[in-house]
Amino acid sequence: MYRSPVESIAFTLRNAADFEAARAEGIYGDLGADDIDAVLEEAGKFASDVIAPLNMIGDKFGTPFKDGRITMPPGWKEAYAAWAAAGWNGLASPEQWGGQGLPQAVNIACIEMWNSASAAFGVGPVLTMAGIDALAGHGSDELKRIYLPKMISGEWMGTMQLTEPQAGSDVGALRTKAERAGDGTYRITGQKIFITYGEHELTDNIIHLVLARLSDAPPGTRGISLFVVPKFLVNADGSLGARNDVRAHSIEHKMGIHASPTCTMVYGDNGGAVGYLVGEENRGMSYMFVMMNRARLAIGAQGVAIAEAATQRAAAYARERKQGRTAAMNATQSSAIIEHVDVKRMLMTMRAMTNAARAICYTTAVALDRSERSKDPAARAAANERASLLTPIAKAFSTDVATEAASLGIQIHGGMGFIEETGAAQLYRDARITQIYEGTNGIQSIDLVMRKLPMSGGATVRGYIGELRGIVADINAANDPAFGATGKRLGEAVDQLERATEWLLPKIAGAPEQALAGATPYLRLFSLATGGCMLAKDALAATRGNGNGTLPAAPMIAAARFFATNIAIGASGLAETVVDGADSIDAIPTEMLG
Amino acid sequence: MYRSPVESIAFTLRNAADFEAARAEGIYGDLGADDIDAVLEEAGKFASDVIAPLNMIGDKFGTPFKDGRITMPPGWKEAYAAWAAAGWNGLASPEQWGGQGLPQAVNIACIEMWNSASAAFGVGPVLTMAGIDALAGHGSDELKRIYLPKMISGEWMGTMQLTEPQAGSDVGALRTKAERAGDGTYRITGQKIFITYGEHELTDNIIHLVLARLSDAPPGTRGISLFVVPKFLVNADGSLGARNDVRAHSIEHKMGIHASPTCTMVYGDNGGAVGYLVGEENRGMSYMFVMMNRARLAIGAQGVAIAEAATQRAAAYARERKQGRTAAMNATQSSAIIEHVDVKRMLMTMRAMTNAARAICYTTAVALDRSERSKDPAARAAANERASLLTPIAKAFSTDVATEAASLGIQIHGGMGFIEETGAAQLYRDARITQIYEGTNGIQSIDLVMRKLPMSGGATVRGYIGELRGIVADINAANDPAFGATGKRLGEAVDQLERATEWLLPKIAGAPEQALAGATPYLRLFSLATGGCMLAKDALAATRGNGNGTLPAAPMIAAARFFATNIAIGASGLAETVVDGADSIDAIPTEMLG
Repeated sequence: MYRSPVESIAFTLRNAADFEAARAEGIYGDLGADDIDAVLEEAGKFASDVIAPLNMIGDKFGTPFKDGRITMPPGWKEAYAAWAAAGWNGLASPEQWGGQGLPQAVNIACIEMWNSASAAFGVGPVLTMAGIDALAGHGSDELKRIYLPKMISGEWMGTMQLTEPQAGSDVGALRTKAERAGDGTYRITGQKIFITYGEHELTDNIIHLVLARLSDAPPGTRGISLFVVPKFLVNADGSLGARNDVRAHSIEHKMGIHASPTCTMVYGDNGGAVGYLVGEENRGMSYMFVMMNRARLAIGAQGVAIAEAATQRAAAYARERKQGRTAAMNATQSSAIIEHVDVKRMLMTMRAMTNAARAICYTTAVALDRSERSKDPAARAAANERASLLTPIAKAFSTDVATEAASLGIQIHGGMGFIEETGAAQLYRDARITQIYEGTNGIQSIDLVMRKLPMSGGATVRGYIGELRGIVADINAANDPAFGATGKRLGEAVDQLERATEWLLPKIAGAPEQALAGATPYLRLFSLATGGCMLAKDALAATRGNGNGTLPAAPMIAAARFFATNIAIGASGLAETVVDGADSIDAIPTEMLG
Repeated sequence: MYRSPVESIAFTLRNAADFEAARAEGIYGDLGADDIDAVLEEAGKFASDVIAPLNMIGDKFGTPFKDGRITMPPGWKEAYAAWAAAGWNGLASPEQWGGQGLPQAVNIACIEMWNSASAAFGVGPVLTMAGIDALAGHGSDELKRIYLPKMISGEWMGTMQLTEPQAGSDVGALRTKAERAGDGTYRITGQKIFITYGEHELTDNIIHLVLARLSDAPPGTRGISLFVVPKFLVNADGSLGARNDVRAHSIEHKMGIHASPTCTMVYGDNGGAVGYLVGEENRGMSYMFVMMNRARLAIGAQGVAIAEAATQRAAAYARERKQGRTAAMNATQSSAIIEHVDVKRMLMTMRAMTNAARAICYTTAVALDRSERSKDPAARAAANERASLLTPIAKAFSTDVATEAASLGIQIHGGMGFIEETGAAQLYRDARITQIYEGTNGIQSIDLVMRKLPMSGGATVRGYIGELRGIVADINAANDPAFGATGKRLGEAVDQLERATEWLLPKIAGAPEQALAGATPYLRLFSLATGGCMLAKDALAATRGNGNGTLPAAPMIAAARFFATNIAIGASGLAETVVDGADSIDAIPTEMLG
């Protein structure tokens, strides 16, 4: 069962992800290192002790749906109430409305731990937090006053409602209607699908954030507005009023995250649900983008979370399971399978990939914090571009890693991995959605290439590659034989990233189809170069003993070295695919693909 | 729903897999090209029309177990009976005992189709066929007379029983006991786990092939004997007698192949099950190895099968689902997602990988046929080594491809892929076991490196690499611009394969831990070089119009080119990992892996 790796999390946050550097800049006020330790320690305990034991129960029980109501699995309501009461939901929310105002980076580390304990549990609050961000950023004072305190306390949960049957990746195709009621409110009619935690009784009210279109709105994404649609209307005194005209019509039978109810929502059985406009009409997509970016990073953290849980479970099994023997043993002896080199390779792949993905997510979160908290506007703008650049990588790479690690986790279990009782299969089933929701990983790669690379005329990505080069130079300068070929291989990976980037930049406007053809391998290439450098950065910090937080250096060096020589080594093939592979896709007759 | 790709199967069988060349050598007697077409056509129809509709029913219904009995899903018994009545079970079995004596290569193509239609259905007969092989190869005349006709007709199914709780990959650790009864029969006591189709009522009797150990046997794999243990004893007149002392104790709750009952079997509640020795005492492992190799190739075909089914399903969805638009469209238009280049990349990856894995499996099957049927003993021996070399690649690569293709299949479905109703999720769940059973893919890679590379002092693998070079030379000689960089990239892949092979060969005896460290990436490298060359061979045959069977060349060239420039391009990174990665695994402190 999952044990929160609090020390490792804190180390990566402080070193690879630059949290201590950001703190030294003063962006976190008087927040002390001890404060962070205390928060992570408590979160880790709650995740391991309270949430983790519910995970398999949730998988088995699911969320039975009957007559519009959902029954959550045994123990879930109590656990959620305790979690909210401990203040976890509002960790990074504005203090003005009852939040704790702590860094997003610390919240992301906590989100990872909730999701390692149970992805089906952890995904609900991610959406509530995204809703809080949207309301805090763009809601009227009245909306904030009514909704934020209870959403931040966790007394009410929230949802994000974008998807419709014809509008998935193409959000602009949505048809849910909003009409002005004449009193400043709106009436919402239509249908939404795949709504996570769309209905449940964990909380007395559910605050839906719904994208809809006014009848006189322009087509596409420029004609979408964002509304607050509470499940129960809220009286002036804050008490709950009438049930709003929105209901869950059905739930999906999913492969994983069984305890997360995924609902089809129907609006307007009786004329339309009452909705309250957030911000201005027709600007909903831009508000939602902010929410989505936060949610994307959180789903990246969910990917790290599942990978971490899978790694722990597989390692525990590999220590316990005896089978075969090493070359040094005689025929009557048997060794734990963790001693077999092929099992070591699998476990090390899981561990190195998980740690790399974690570092990328935390780095993105620190950039987000800088983008909001740095005193210098230019520093905020630069950090915003950095966060924008890294968000698709954090989301897509971490969730790919979740599936890869969960798959290796099954493999290490052998036949037992395919049996549901070990829990390895659940992680594999749960992981698979993370590559899809909050924008498929294909959409992430397109976002990276088409929207993020061109930022500041390419200066943002070039600047980042320059920083990676700095890390490579640090390793080479350290001249520590324990690193083996780490510096050499990472240097090659960064070279390949630069080569592919420079090939792509002029294609984005000039030959977009060629750029798009390379988007997925490019995102992977970017992730390998970045992930390898992140591991090396942590390892260097540990080696120098000036790491913020002290952990033994040897495991971190081993992870960096393994990643560089066994995983980042794929960089040249990926770069070649980006540069040279597009023509081969162009040449494909579509009719052959069936 | 699955439609058997009979033309494509026949083309690859004849060209890439060299079936026509083998037929021209005369190893198949007077078997005509038309005969093969007719068999494949009929098998394809049966698979698509009768088996495929049962697949989702089987997934939902499972195999409920009560009081030692299993209920198969609705329609399954009838379908199995019809399948057996049509003679499919004995397609490649000896004519002497009622089989049709057709080539293993044709049977493998049929096995692929049964398993594309339903992996849970297809896996049962694979084990019956393996049992037939063992009995036909090593059983006494009496055992053959009693069991073979009904096993070949499919009237009785068979099982393979190796695994015990403490004996998985390490078969030599098994403890099930056999005692001589004094009348030439034996009494078997013990427990077996993970027994596929260990109990069911598809057939009136089930013939278990069981590995057990005599009390005076040597330890390890040299002390294992193989027994026939029928569920019901068979009277002298062939009628069924008393129930034998073996029963299913429970079934597993698995992630996939729900309609394949996986049983824990208990022997000897009442003193011991009656067992009949196959061959000689203590030689069971060597007989079982023959069965396992056949079964491994068949599981490779099952991998191809699931990949094919996933590709078809994803392509159909991608043609139907409209979302977004291509660069050439205006904002009100929407295109089928198959037009999006990232979706094309995913589909083409699925298609090219599936076709490559198919060619590898069929090539292995033709080598098996040659090893049995060639007139020249030297040719038989060489073919046997070729089949031995390729079997672990056929098994491991094809089943890795199954999971990769099924995963991409989910991704192409987006959110719908995670919902069970589309069937994409079932393929993903079903696929995952193929990488584990019949020897995990880690075991396959170890088998390839430690047992197969050293054959004939390395001459076998070197000879094969030489053949791949010949294919590369053919592409280069064709000088057809449609192939793009295919020849160049495949040439590099073969160079890398050779480099890694030559590095490994002296390590196998000299530094086995180093060889083992590179086994998994080496198997992948071998597969990419081989798969790419196989696709190129098919494409060349189609281009020259001298292909046996005519299909349009363009799709085959596109697949070969895509594979070479987007997939086989990973060869250099893999070779580097083999040659350079072992040290980084050595350097891992085991305690960090948790």
